[in-house]
Parts: sequence; C-alpha cells; structure tokens
Amino acid sequence: MNAPDKFAPLLTLTREPFPASTKVFVPGTQAGVQVPMREIALTNGERVTVYDTSGPYTDPTVSIDVRKGLAPVRAAWIEARGDTEAYSGRERQALDDGVKHEVPDAHAAERIAALRGEAAALQRTPRRAKGGIGAGANVTQMHYARQGIVTPEMEYIAIRENGKRDWMREYLGDPEREARLRGNPMGARIPEIITPEFVREEVARGRAIIPANINHPELEPMIIGRNFGVKINANIGNSAVTSSIEEEVEKLVWSIRWGGDTVMDLSTGKNIHTTRDWIVRNSPVPIGTVPIYQALEKVGGVAEDLSWEIFRDTLIEQAEQGIDYFTIHAGVRLPFIHLTTKRRTGIVSRGGSILAKWCITHHKENFLYTHFEEICEIMKAYDVSFSLGDGLRPGSGADANDEAQFAELRTLGELTQIAWKHDVQTMIEGPGHVPMHLIQANMDEQLKHCHEAPFYTLGPLTIDIAPGYDHIASAIGAAMIGWMGTAMLCYVTPKEHLGLPDRDDVKQGIIAYKIAAHAADIAKGHPGARARDDAMSKARFEFRWRDQFALGLDPDTAEAYHDETLPKDSSKEAHFCSMCGPKFCSMKITQDVRDYAEQKGLAETEALQQGMAEKSAQFKAAGGEFYVPLDTLKKG
Amino acid sequence: MNAPDKFAPLLTLTREPFPASTKVFVPGTQAGVQVPMREIALTNGERVTVYDTSGPYTDPTVSIDVRKGLAPVRAAWIEARGDTEAYSGRERQALDDGVKHEVPDAHAAERIAALRGEAAALQRTPRRAKGGIGAGANVTQMHYARQGIVTPEMEYIAIRENGKRDWMREYLGDPEREARLRGNPMGARIPEIITPEFVREEVARGRAIIPANINHPELEPMIIGRNFGVKINANIGNSAVTSSIEEEVEKLVWSIRWGGDTVMDLSTGKNIHTTRDWIVRNSPVPIGTVPIYQALEKVGGVAEDLSWEIFRDTLIEQAEQGIDYFTIHAGVRLPFIHLTTKRRTGIVSRGGSILAKWCITHHKENFLYTHFEEICEIMKAYDVSFSLGDGLRPGSGADANDEAQFAELRTLGELTQIAWKHDVQTMIEGPGHVPMHLIQANMDEQLKHCHEAPFYTLGPLTIDIAPGYDHIASAIGAAMIGWMGTAMLCYVTPKEHLGLPDRDDVKQGIIAYKIAAHAADIAKGHPGARARDDAMSKARFEFRWRDQFALGLDPDTAEAYHDETLPKDSSKEAHFCSMCGPKFCSMKITQDVRDYAEQKGLAETEALQQGMAEKSAQFKAAGGEFYVPLDTLKKG
Repeated sequence: MNAPDKFAPLLTLTREPFPASTKVFVPGTQAGVQVPMREIALTNGERVTVYDTSGPYTDPTVSIDVRKGLAPVRAAWIEARGDTEAYSGRERQALDDGVKHEVPDAHAAERIAALRGEAAALQRTPRRAKGGIGAGANVTQMHYARQGIVTPEMEYIAIRENGKRDWMREYLGDPEREARLRGNPMGARIPEIITPEFVREEVARGRAIIPANINHPELEPMIIGRNFGVKINANIGNSAVTSSIEEEVEKLVWSIRWGGDTVMDLSTGKNIHTTRDWIVRNSPVPIGTVPIYQALEKVGGVAEDLSWEIFRDTLIEQAEQGIDYFTIHAGVRLPFIHLTTKRRTGIVSRGGSILAKWCITHHKENFLYTHFEEICEIMKAYDVSFSLGDGLRPGSGADANDEAQFAELRTLGELTQIAWKHDVQTMIEGPGHVPMHLIQANMDEQLKHCHEAPFYTLGPLTIDIAPGYDHIASAIGAAMIGWMGTAMLCYVTPKEHLGLPDRDDVKQGIIAYKIAAHAADIAKGHPGARARDDAMSKARFEFRWRDQFALGLDPDTAEAYHDETLPKDSSKEAHFCSMCGPKFCSMKITQDVRDYAEQKGLAETEALQQGMAEKSAQFKAAGGEFYVPLDTLKKG
Repeated sequence: MNAPDKFAPLLTLTREPFPASTKVFVPGTQAGVQVPMREIALTNGERVTVYDTSGPYTDPTVSIDVRKGLAPVRAAWIEARGDTEAYSGRERQALDDGVKHEVPDAHAAERIAALRGEAAALQRTPRRAKGGIGAGANVTQMHYARQGIVTPEMEYIAIRENGKRDWMREYLGDPEREARLRGNPMGARIPEIITPEFVREEVARGRAIIPANINHPELEPMIIGRNFGVKINANIGNSAVTSSIEEEVEKLVWSIRWGGDTVMDLSTGKNIHTTRDWIVRNSPVPIGTVPIYQALEKVGGVAEDLSWEIFRDTLIEQAEQGIDYFTIHAGVRLPFIHLTTKRRTGIVSRGGSILAKWCITHHKENFLYTHFEEICEIMKAYDVSFSLGDGLRPGSGADANDEAQFAELRTLGELTQIAWKHDVQTMIEGPGHVPMHLIQANMDEQLKHCHEAPFYTLGPLTIDIAPGYDHIASAIGAAMIGWMGTAMLCYVTPKEHLGLPDRDDVKQGIIAYKIAAHAADIAKGHPGARARDDAMSKARFEFRWRDQFALGLDPDTAEAYHDETLPKDSSKEAHFCSMCGPKFCSMKITQDVRDYAEQKGLAETEALQQGMAEKSAQFKAAGGEFYVPLDTLKKG
C-alpha cells in the first residue's frame, strides 16, 4: 500500500441507493422540516413510499465526508428555542480513550493519533441548557410537550410516521378486506393519521420518547412508543479482542441501511471516546450507549473501583458528544442480588453484573439508584433519554419471569416516576430469554408498573438450544412482544452467545428484526403497514420480479436467490418461476382460469362471480348434485 | 472422470455422527421394538438423550448401501398381523416416469437407464390388505387402535415420545421453577408419561396419526398429533428446470439429519417414479406426496385432461411404492372457486389451481370430492394417511381467513368424518400466509370443524415483504400456531417465492422450523422439552463450549461461529468469550460475586440468601436507607 493511501480510504461507505428507489422529502409547516422517505418506482408505474432510516447515505445528491460529519439539520431548531448555550465543555482526558492500554506498535500509534486528530476536528462545540446542570433550563422534548409546545421534531415525526398515504388507495379500503384483516391493537390506540399534536400528547404523557440530544443536531428525529410503528435497535461496538474504528463507522451506515432505527455503541476497548465522536457526527439515527462500560474502562476494569464521580463525569462526557439515550442500570438494587443466586444463569447483563459486584463488594446500595435524581439533572440539561436497564434480566428460559427480574422491573417503574417528575424522557429495557407462554406476563407487568413508558426488549429468545440461529429464536419472541405493546426491539444476531457479529451478521439480525417489527405493526393494525405487503403480493401475482425485489426488505438477497435457479434476464419477466416451472405454476393457472372465464363471455369479474354464486345456489338447492350443466353458467 | 467411477459415487451421504453423540436404543416389550435415540456425552459426565430423526445414517455401525435400501424394521410386524398379502402389483409403465420428456443426450440416457435399473432392483414386492382394494381387510393403525390393539408401532412411538427421562432430574422438578415456568397447553392434554395405550387412544380418536404404509417397512414409526411433540416436515423434489435424482436422495438424508420428522417428495419432472423408489427405500421417516403432480405429468401437463382413472392408478402406483401420506385436494370444490376471484393472489396451491382449472373447464365438481370414498378404499388397503390439502389457502396476508379458505376448511372437516368412517388416518393442511392476529382463528376453526384431526400448516408467513427470509417470517407464525395446537409444521426455506432450495437452504429451513416446534413444545409445557435448554444454559454458565455446540440444533455452525472470533483451541475452555472479553464477562462476574460471598464465610448459598433476605428486610424496615453496614451481612 502506498503512503498517501494509508489513512485516506479508511472508510468504504455503502452508499448505493436501493433498486428503483429515490429519496423524496415531505415538507412540514415549521422551518427546516423536510422529512426524507424512500420512494420505489414500480415497473407498472405505481410509486410506493416507505419509511427510511438510511439517512443521506442513500441520497446520491448529497456529498458526505465522514471527517466533517453530516449536516446539522436540527441546529437551527435548537438554536431558535433560545434555552441552550454553547460552552467550552469538559476537558478531554487521555483516560477517555483508555490509557491503560498500551499502543501495540508504531504503525498503530501513528494511525490512532491520526484518527484522534480527525475526531477532534469533528468535535462540535457542546451545548447545554442555559445555566448548566442542576440549576439551568430543562431542554427535553418532554418538557416542551408538557408546556404545550409542538417542536419541529414532533412535526417531523408525525409526517414520518404517517408516510405518504396516496399510493395506498390501490391497496387499502376494500370494506370486506378491511373488516376481515382488522388488527388487534392489544391496548394500543393508534390514530388513523398521526398529527403533530398527537406526538406532543404522547411525549407529554411519557408513552413515547424522542431520543434527541441537543448535541446531536445531525439527527433525523424519530419516536419510540407503543402508538407508533415498532422500531428496532442494532448494537455495534468494538471490543478488546477484535474490531477497529473504521469497521465501526461503516457498521453504523450498514445498520441504518437495512433498517436500524437507533444504534447502540457498545464499544468497550480502546479509543471509546474517539469511536463515539465518529459515530455520532455521522449518524442520522439516535445513538445509545451504556456509560458504565466506559466508566469501567476508566478504572482499569475493576468494578469495585467505580464511583459516582467517575460515572457522573462519563455521563457528561457522553452527553456533550451527543449520545441520545443512556442505558442506566439503576434497578440493580442491593436487596435484589441474592434473588439471582439460585438462578440457572445468574446475572447475564454486563452492566448488571458490574453493578452487582460493586454493591456486594461495598455492601452499599447501587450508586445509580442513590444518585438517580442527580442523573436526571444531567439528562435534562442535554435531553438525553433514559433507557432504564434490566441488569437482572434472565439469561435463560429457566430464569424467566422470576422474582429478581420482576423486583427490578417494579423498581424501574418507581424510577420512571422520578424521571417524569424531572420531565426526562424514559424507556424501560426488557428481557432477554422468555418462553412464548410467559411473554404476555412480561408485557402486562411492564405496562402495569412502568405506566406505559415505552418498553424496549432484547428479543426475547423463546428457546436456548439454537446457538447460531438466535436471531430466529428471538425474532419469534420479538414479533409477539412487539404486537403486545413493546415499542422498540433490540436485535439479536446469529452470533449471539458465540462471538462478535460481523457485517453480514449485523444485516441478518436487522432483517430478522425488521420482520418481527413489521409483523407486529400488521397485527396491531398500524394504519398503512399492510400496503407494502399488498403491493408485494400484487407484484408476485403479476410476476413483476424486479418489483418484488425492490419491495422486499433485502432486494439484493432476493434477486441473488432468484438468479440462482433461473437465468438472469430471460426470467425477470417470465410468467412462472423455478419453484414449479411453467406447467405447475399456480398463479399462471389461476390466471388461465380467469382468462378462460373471459373467453366464455364472462369478461367482468362481477359477472363471473354472479354466475358462480348463482351456480353455487343452484347447486345447493339441487341437494348437492355434483354435475352442473355448462349452459347454467353460460346464462350467468 | 474414469468410466468405472461414472455411476458408482452417485451419492455422497452425510453420515458423520453429531459431535459427542452416539446412537442408543431403548427396547420395548414387543418383539423388534428398539427405539433409537441420540445420546450426547457432555464433558462434565452428564448424558443427555434427545429425539433422533436421522435414522441409521448417523450410526457408524450400520453399513448402508442405497442401492439395497434400509433394513425393513417393520416387516415382521406387518407380516405377523396376518392381514396383508404380497401380490404382483401394478405393472410399471413408461408413463410413470414421464414419457413426454425426451432424454436430452446420450450420456444422460445412459445414466437414467442405469438409475432405473438400480431402482428396479430396489423395488420390493408390494403388499396390500388381504382381498385387495374395496373388498379386503382394513390395515390402518386407526383400524387396529379402534379394535383395542396396541401395535408395535404404537409402543415404539410411546417410547420415542417420552425419551429418556433419567438425565432430566438434574434440570426438572424444582418446585418454584416448575410453578413459574408451567406451560400453557392451549387445550392440549399431554400426559406426564406417554403410554402405548395413550398412543392407541389418540389414534383411535383421530387426534393423532401414525403415517406408516405397509409397503414402507424401513420406517421408524412416529406420530403426529397435538398431544405429542410438535413435528416438522421438509419438502424435497426435483424439477423440470433443475435438480437431479442423486441430489434428491442426499436431500432426504440431509433433511432428516437436521430434524425433518417427515419428508414430502414434491418431484414434478422426469423420473418421478424412479426418484420415489430411491427415496422410500432409503427413508426411515414417513414420505408424503401430492399424487396430482404425477397424474398431471401423465396427461402431459394439461389439467383438463386429468381423470379419476388416471388419478386412481397413480394412487395405487404410489401406495405400492410405500408412500405414507397423500395430499389430496378434495376440498377445492366447484362452488368455492368463484370465492377466489377477488383475491389479491388467487389460488396459490399448485394442486388447488390444477383442480380449479379442471372444475372450471368441465363445469364439474372436483373428482377427488366425488370419488372420496373410493380413495378411502385405497388408503385403507395400504394404510396411507390422508393429508387433506388446502388448495384454497391464502397466498398473501391480504387473502388470509377469507371465505374461500374457510369454506374449504369446513369441507375438509366433512371429509374427515368420511375418512374416519373408513378408519383412515387423516390430517388437515393449513395456511400459508396469515398475519399474527389472525392465527388463533385458524386454529379455532380447524379444531371446531375438523374435530381435532391433526393440523399440518405451512408456516404461516406473518408478512409478505421478506423474500429471501421467508423461513423467518414464517417461523414466527409456525411457533405460534404450533403452540396453539398444530401438530406438524411444514417448513419454508429462504428460497420460498424465489427459487428452488439448495442443500443449505433446506438446512436453514429445517433449523428455523426446529426452533419453532421446540418453542411450541416449551410453551405448551411438553414434559421434558425444557431439559435440553436447561442443560445448554448450564453449559453456557460454566463455559463448557464443546457441550454448548453438542447440545445445539446445529453444532457445526455454532462451533464455526465461535471460532471466527476466538482462536480455536485456547478458547474452548476459556471462561469468557469474544462478545465481551474477559473484563466484561457477566457470567464471570456473577461467579466472582458468588466466590466473594464464599470467601466472606458464606459458603452456602442458603446462608447467603438468608443473609441477604435479612438485610433486605432490615433495609426496608429502616425506611430505605441506602447504606447497610458490612457486619450486618457477616452475621447472616
């Protein structure tokens, strides 16, 4: 490799638009509200518009330099509210990137220095609520919502959730079909059209959150709540054992390409701070973290050396960088830890186990619990949302729904009330490993104790014996709990329990979870969710292969699979496919049946139906004789 | 390639036993009842025994020559019943293998001739009920069951369903856990121990079937019914477009290796008859077919040229070969066809569309419906089970649960009563494409109208927009409907809607469906289903990597994924893994917590618990003060 290229091509971003797709924007009434969507142009002239998480990366008209970061679409809105101030910010420390790790060689040192330089160039001047932490303004979307203010973020979200409805008229509205397919919302109340005011109400009520740190102006706002589309989260992260910063940023782009609504940066190794700068500045989706991971790095990995001071400093560090939600394991209380000792798999949450060790060692209550109101003060100065972590979640079906899990859940409900007192947006993390028949109880307990704060579950995995396929074992549970009311599903990849996900594993996990979330939306009766399926089914029936690929969650794989058994181009328009061949094609035969009816002078479907109905009636009236004379039908 | 090798290595059978696994046999009381199971020897000395569908292929002590077929384990039982007779059988016709297809070249012709010669060598002398079709004995398992006879097949199945229970004591029986995890059987009544008498009762009642043609003596008997473990079916088949006979037989071995409980041979192209000979003679699992496919081949693919005579002849041809169940689309009635014309995707069942075309063209009632009792006469002369096909199943979520689907289902219920009048075993096929919220209605309608005859569903797919991932979209629906009472789940591969599955697709589909079936068993509370999961969870907590691989549904993939991120051998015993690294390993920290407690003189878990409980009480009594002095715990 030549020297000039050594650092330049650090990232190879995936930027091709999806097949037949263009980025379109729907404007709002407030300044700067331009909501991006993906429009798919079908070969029959129809245009299908779908929710788009991929940000500017799939827009070829946008020039992106990851060393400069994305355009700050929210900056003017934040500025216009007049309740924040730029400030010098916390001083960057060597410890933030893990000083205990020696740089392995000169080349790596050179590279890391270069990365840090570029990261520093990316760093925006941080903002905070005027007056600072503890004494200043409250800049959360919940605070605005409770004052009756419809922010540009809320209007943006209303437009985004509705999508374009005009193209759906072809597919929705048939009275018989609508009645037959009517969703079962399981307690959700999703209006036909989402208004900005509805978004405001839901946020004010605490039933939905808009994770949107004021230091993440690059964000395209989105919402998490049971009365909106079910969202999914993808985890990325480096590791002490493998991975690199370059891979992590491409993983972000890759994750949102396939449908990640939020991304959690779970990095634990070297260069955590630097990695995070790169990710946030280049992310159009909310970024979540588990701050205790970095705090633990700062104390050399010794859990008992953690302190509130180090943790607080880490929260501020990350809040200034623009992290949108923090997983905080404040429910791992000292009196609950003994409840885990008889478990099959003890404590499986990393954060939960770190805090359990701290509590036991010091025989003190969890400092996240004791300092919870102080954490709220930080959250509201930057609008970081809580994701109250389930540190005592079950790590096996055997431990599902036990007292340790539910004791913590009830505590998270108490903490939710405290957070809401501060107008801090809050969601609740959930399991984990739960057999199908115990999933409903999880949702019921969460709704009851956490007052409808959005539930954000990991899976749950329905069985334990599928290593290598836990994205499937958990997609089953995720679809069910999504239907029952979970607002966001944290993905599981095929590598779960086995190793770190690579690029393809991340994609596999995301697609499995898009399936689960979409299945949930359809079951709930989310307005418009079904239309894309209908467009697919119509394309299927009409053998419009290219449209089937374009309408699918993963056009590349669908096309590649199709091309494996039929030659590439001749079959794209073929009115049959390789599953059955031309002779056995049921769709072709169905069409033949219709064509045959037309030849017989029954051109109108209505006429055919009427004829058939008459015939059926005659058939029954005649006592079920099997032969019906041909001319009976002809008369119809 | 040298001439002598040209035909010899036609098959490369997958015969390696699974890791750490050996074949064990549990004897029954009746002669020849030796039930094979797979015993997994764990590294901690435990032995876990699991249900084994793989037949003798995973038993290295058995020599297998596919040109001779498997040992006829049931032959003596069939002979001993004294109600069957060997006979010369129907004369083989050139048409059986599709004469309309010209052989493409001389080499292929030579090869096909060789295959047919070998297939002819495999052909067993067929048997039938004494006296022949229509006038003879009834040799169905249902007929025996209703006479109070417990056949060797029934005893075999009872042993097989129970599995070995001794090793489960480690995992099952804890009162708190059993109460917490108690299954929800959704109306199933699964006894703690399956007795041969219970098997007999369920078969007599029609609630379960034992697909076991008297001409398939190689079969290892299995049962399909809601009060037994949920089963899965894998489809294989050649095609006019691709595939070859050699591939098909290996696909059988491959399918049962990964867990296919039955296999359907859906071949439609050349050499159907020959392919079937090879498959049945080498299959330890029941083989199902859709005879209308072959009948259509015999009339050159022209649906309207089908006749009862050709179909009847095909049934006898296949019954003599040993097919265990036939999909019969007798519910696609003339008066229902017009109900499909307003559908989004019309008729998507191949068999359904063929018969619809026949009905419409001739304006006659479906000849399978009009000749249904004659079909029953054939079925009971060989003990072929009905799989009453859902030719009008929905091909999209939009068409789910419509009148066409349910009208056919009610008809299948009527036909079930007729079949049962003849003591012919019957199961009912189901959809297809059904959104989650409409799945329960499918099960309810089936139970109501079909009198608890076993339900055998394809998926159902919960969404339509996941081409390339329909094994996942459908595993969600399959797990749910399996829980609700479906007895067997027909797999869907990632190639569904796109092309023919290859070897890996078949495996992906099977594993997804093993997950769904196992999730259903656990949710229903199937006795013993959970123990393997518990063994896995224990191995996970104790970082016994090799045991985790061996206990998984796919040991190869689990090990390969593990090895991708951690070096091969050093990490097999490592007490952490690459997901988190040693510092963040929650399981390690959990163990540290326990160890720490031990160092403090709290060696006994009970003591720790008691101390914690006291502390917790003190904590609450003290009004929730956060600090608890160290000595409080020490006293405990």
